[in-house]
Amino acid sequence: MRVRDGQETALPQVVAAEVPIALSYNGRSHVVMMGTPADLEDFAVGFSIAEGIVDDVDEIEDIACSDSGKGLRVSVAIPPAWAARIENQQRNLAGRTGCGLCGVTTIEQALRPLPRLPAGTPIAASAIAASLEALPAQQKINRETGAVHAAAFADRTGTLLAVREDIGRHNAFDKLIGAVARAGLDPADGFALITSRCSMEMVQKAATFGFPLLVAISAPTSLAIELAEGCGLTLVAFARGAKFNVYTHGERVSIDR
Amino acid sequence: MRVRDGQETALPQVVAAEVPIALSYNGRSHVVMMGTPADLEDFAVGFSIAEGIVDDVDEIEDIACSDSGKGLRVSVAIPPAWAARIENQQRNLAGRTGCGLCGVTTIEQALRPLPRLPAGTPIAASAIAASLEALPAQQKINRETGAVHAAAFADRTGTLLAVREDIGRHNAFDKLIGAVARAGLDPADGFALITSRCSMEMVQKAATFGFPLLVAISAPTSLAIELAEGCGLTLVAFARGAKFNVYTHGERVSIDR
Repeated sequence: MRVRDGQETALPQVVAAEVPIALSYNGRSHVVMMGTPADLEDFAVGFSIAEGIVDDVDEIEDIACSDSGKGLRVSVAIPPAWAARIENQQRNLAGRTGCGLCGVTTIEQALRPLPRLPAGTPIAASAIAASLEALPAQQKINRETGAVHAAAFADRTGTLLAVREDIGRHNAFDKLIGAVARAGLDPADGFALITSRCSMEMVQKAATFGFPLLVAISAPTSLAIELAEGCGLTLVAFARGAKFNVYTHGERVSIDR
Repeated sequence: MRVRDGQETALPQVVAAEVPIALSYNGRSHVVMMGTPADLEDFAVGFSIAEGIVDDVDEIEDIACSDSGKGLRVSVAIPPAWAARIENQQRNLAGRTGCGLCGVTTIEQALRPLPRLPAGTPIAASAIAASLEALPAQQKINRETGAVHAAAFADRTGTLLAVREDIGRHNAFDKLIGAVARAGLDPADGFALITSRCSMEMVQKAATFGFPLLVAISAPTSLAIELAEGCGLTLVAFARGAKFNVYTHGERVSIDR
């Protein structure tokens, strides 16, 4: 029922699908995420890499997706030694929409060490602006339903090479990481965009996978800035076309207009 | 560094603080959330009620907050029998910004049974519009930093009785629930507002605490609608002033303009 200034009308609407997605490694339940039922293999690969469960897409031996009736199951096969590593981390949990990473009980675990990102050729401000302008046309699920997050990977000219969507911003980013890894693209050869805010776990995922530059459309948090500064990631946020703020490692952004 | 159409300027900016908040029950670590360091006692009470750890604010015997240097610690004392209930649920995990609920490994656990909300007197559409208009002036942290979520409780006339903010939307809602419970207000005597989308765990929290009507500024998800329909919650979303959509149990909204 739509209410508009005291008038009510009944009308159909397409809403974003949200389903429980149960991820298991070698037959053992790992996490249940609430997410958008699309690009599940990208999600499985991206989550596994971004959370440090595997180091590379080649370490994933198999991915099988099935519908359990009440939700989707994604079964990932990884080398036994890697599965043992997970058990040591004692992760056995559910992430609802937007849960970035679960399974740690201490503050020290939450702030896991990040790899140092190498310096590289700067990205032009005009390329960042071009990628931001191109993104809305690629947000297909969002156009139909509203309020679905997207994550994208752009090359140095700002051309979008991959876009993934999910109702959860962490899931969207995991799916993007999976898509980039499966396509064999080098994350250091461009930059990542997210339509959401940038909280600290987005910096963790970007640094773990190897994106040197992360552009968020909305605000960064204090800890995201602190972690980005520490691991050498260039963090751009409040990004709207040619207007954006650079919070850390500005040497990777060149002003060309 | 601010970039505006090819010009760069350095300028200071206030960013939203994001800190690890470690919650423990009776000395045992339960969860680490990334959140805004404000209203921690409300958070402790609201999380405990909304997640079904206790049934009522009176069951919380003590809350102690401290700064561990790397994050904040919130130690909650509850009756021993309640603490045992948590251990059975095997929740030992971290929720990053926006993680609604963690610690379940199966889809069945993720979709926990919800209480049925009793029917009640309808709320006028004009009261919903009034509360939405009043909210931005109460979002103090958001005004300074941007992109911080709020949750509010309004009485039947639309007057805001409590507003809480957090960088995580679930945390903001937990803080609101704690504030309403601690003030001894009856959640059935008004309605709740959230500035975010409405995913399924927001419906779970609302129904568990007893809000009969939940108004979200952004979009609902399919599962949020399904759960709201099932537990008798009235779900309003895409709410902008006098314009909003009613997805479930429209009998609680009366059109008065």
